[in-house]
Amino acid sequence: MKMLIKNVTAVLPDGSTPVTNIMIDKNKIAGIGEVPEDFRPAKVIDGTNHLAIPGFVNAHTHASMTLLRSYADDMALMDWLNKEIWPAEAKMNDEDIYWGAMLAMLEMVRTGTTTYADMYGPWMERVAEATIDAGLRGVLSRGIIGVAPDGEQKIQENADLFRQFNGAADGRLKVMFGPHAPYTCPPKFLEKVAAAAQDLGAEIHIHMHETMDEINGSLKEYGERPFTWVEKTGLFDGKGTLAAHCVHLDDSDFAILKKHNIRVAHNPGSNMKLASGVAPVPRLLQEGIVTALGTDGTSSNNNLDMLEEVNLAAMLHKVNEADPLAVPAFTALQMGTEFGGKAVGIEDIGRLEKGYKADITLLNMQGPAWCPRNNPVSLLVYSANASSVDTVIVDGNVLMEKNELKTLDEERILFEAQRCADRITK
Amino acid sequence: MKMLIKNVTAVLPDGSTPVTNIMIDKNKIAGIGEVPEDFRPAKVIDGTNHLAIPGFVNAHTHASMTLLRSYADDMALMDWLNKEIWPAEAKMNDEDIYWGAMLAMLEMVRTGTTTYADMYGPWMERVAEATIDAGLRGVLSRGIIGVAPDGEQKIQENADLFRQFNGAADGRLKVMFGPHAPYTCPPKFLEKVAAAAQDLGAEIHIHMHETMDEINGSLKEYGERPFTWVEKTGLFDGKGTLAAHCVHLDDSDFAILKKHNIRVAHNPGSNMKLASGVAPVPRLLQEGIVTALGTDGTSSNNNLDMLEEVNLAAMLHKVNEADPLAVPAFTALQMGTEFGGKAVGIEDIGRLEKGYKADITLLNMQGPAWCPRNNPVSLLVYSANASSVDTVIVDGNVLMEKNELKTLDEERILFEAQRCADRITK
Repeated sequence: MKMLIKNVTAVLPDGSTPVTNIMIDKNKIAGIGEVPEDFRPAKVIDGTNHLAIPGFVNAHTHASMTLLRSYADDMALMDWLNKEIWPAEAKMNDEDIYWGAMLAMLEMVRTGTTTYADMYGPWMERVAEATIDAGLRGVLSRGIIGVAPDGEQKIQENADLFRQFNGAADGRLKVMFGPHAPYTCPPKFLEKVAAAAQDLGAEIHIHMHETMDEINGSLKEYGERPFTWVEKTGLFDGKGTLAAHCVHLDDSDFAILKKHNIRVAHNPGSNMKLASGVAPVPRLLQEGIVTALGTDGTSSNNNLDMLEEVNLAAMLHKVNEADPLAVPAFTALQMGTEFGGKAVGIEDIGRLEKGYKADITLLNMQGPAWCPRNNPVSLLVYSANASSVDTVIVDGNVLMEKNELKTLDEERILFEAQRCADRITK
Repeated sequence: MKMLIKNVTAVLPDGSTPVTNIMIDKNKIAGIGEVPEDFRPAKVIDGTNHLAIPGFVNAHTHASMTLLRSYADDMALMDWLNKEIWPAEAKMNDEDIYWGAMLAMLEMVRTGTTTYADMYGPWMERVAEATIDAGLRGVLSRGIIGVAPDGEQKIQENADLFRQFNGAADGRLKVMFGPHAPYTCPPKFLEKVAAAAQDLGAEIHIHMHETMDEINGSLKEYGERPFTWVEKTGLFDGKGTLAAHCVHLDDSDFAILKKHNIRVAHNPGSNMKLASGVAPVPRLLQEGIVTALGTDGTSSNNNLDMLEEVNLAAMLHKVNEADPLAVPAFTALQMGTEFGGKAVGIEDIGRLEKGYKADITLLNMQGPAWCPRNNPVSLLVYSANASSVDTVIVDGNVLMEKNELKTLDEERILFEAQRCADRITK
């Protein structure tokens, strides 16, 4: 189907914001600019007073954890995990995984995210189902913990997930392998994960260097930093690696990131809330390492609002580096869109450009936060919030138009998610 | 008039969140709890599925600067001031001051702020007029720069503002004296400001210790830190002082803050965006110094959204102190409400409690950010955004009900503000 978004203020890949037209043909952007005489759209969306951006890419989350949003906050990390999060997760069944994921889909569509990278489980097939039902683009991985007795089985489940869903839903689904972290996956086990992933040509999604405790624990146990010994397992030798967090990095870690083209998912909100530390984002960007943004799960954020992460990325590194130019607004927006596409290994998303996938978010620039209409990118990143998102298109399909959801039943999702949450947390 | 908010989830001063009823009589909260038989309200607001909080108190801003929102960002500080902000401000006339303030009023009502402390000028009487028109509670001061040739005249203007508006609009207006900062007001000049303010029994609103440059400049010029020599001018000996920023504080500064009961307006968003540094908020709170929150002006934030500041206060200090318990959600909310009341010297605002002013904000808990309904305070601070605000009451008057504005003409304000901005920035 051909579709036209007319008269819209579009954020182009060079940061310019002309009022223009976006032409869509099937699942791709067919052109941006003047509408040729022979372009006959079956659907026209009036983009007047709207800002068009590439849909946000949430490069690291745990969607079904929405059920635990604000269930336990302001606690010390190990208390939080041992007494609250893990006991609640242990009660989750496959319905919880589905409705938790559906609540995440609802929130992502409402806040303009079009692609997300997930790590969770069991029952990741229900997350795949939710993603298909909602119409989003999902990069799924089964969280694999090697220190648990069923570690091998989880590798198998991840392989099954890959065979069943990689490339499914017209290519909207992609499957990676999800070894949880170096501190939950010993070297021999990571070798097995690496072999299984490489066997299938799958990429890796892993938490790396989130806290100083993790690095100190590794130094104590292995005499080496996690990046150093994980590299030796061959985990980074496959098709590609998405490393979440990367908060604490020294020169040797930077060398490994660059050598293996490892892509980083920076999670400023989660790192602030859990007091994990501040990732060296300006240096990562400067050294040409792909650095995207993620929300992490909603129990450490507590939402899936990518515009907040874009804002935090712009704000946190300024104060941390004592440099008001550290991460400018447009760079932060690129981290949440174009660099997100690269981070999750989908090269043709994240830019409003001919040939790219038609994954587009429109924000209504009505209201005081957008007035006066000075610099639209600055207004987006520093002033507006995600409630301005009113239209979301993924793969050429309209998921929300002028706030009306096209694929999701909001009332039902809120009802079912609450019911699931009540059972596992009470 | 008697008014009832029934069946509302209310955040009480102890942090509990019962579903209850709030009774209002004229401009005060008459009670919270069961509705007595003889309480006959002329108006009833259904609070079902809504969260009631004390209206936010923005303890430091420059309202009319909304006209410069996102006009010039991601620049070095002195370039920004010299090349962009000051030339634009120099073109402002009294209409600009009024419509800039009206845009601020609109934004504050939409985001749930009921009281704000302002420092700007000239034509602060137009800001007073806007505050009266909108129905907010305003604590106004004329920004006084002593190094300018018209410094004395500005003291006079601040005195006139006090005489004309302090206590006006049924007590909704309060006037302080606004000596801009130690680096723009030399000692002899501050002595004059102190005398003029004390003569009228007025409090002081001043920027203190915002940047290291300010402190280093003072050490070079006076051989002392600003707090040290400003204390000697007598500025802190009057009725009270509201000190914005206080980012860089040593033990001697803390001693002065405590000795004079100086109240602090912490501006996390502005301090992050301008890379000023991170104020020692956990220590300020621990030492019993009143520490409130402000947005600062919209050219360094870039909005007047107090819920964002509450969120940032909770998040920034966790990562800065490497302590996930540094500023819990409820403490951050208190900073944005109750402590704000104390900071601006109005003791009977900022709490949902009998006898306090009826300054109340209601948030609609509909939508994914509020689901599941675990801890309402945590959901408010960590997950929701200000678009949930749908009803705002100030001094017993309804300024917005279910998103409908009662005192402000949104279309006109946006039109006039844009017109003013176009003239001064183009």
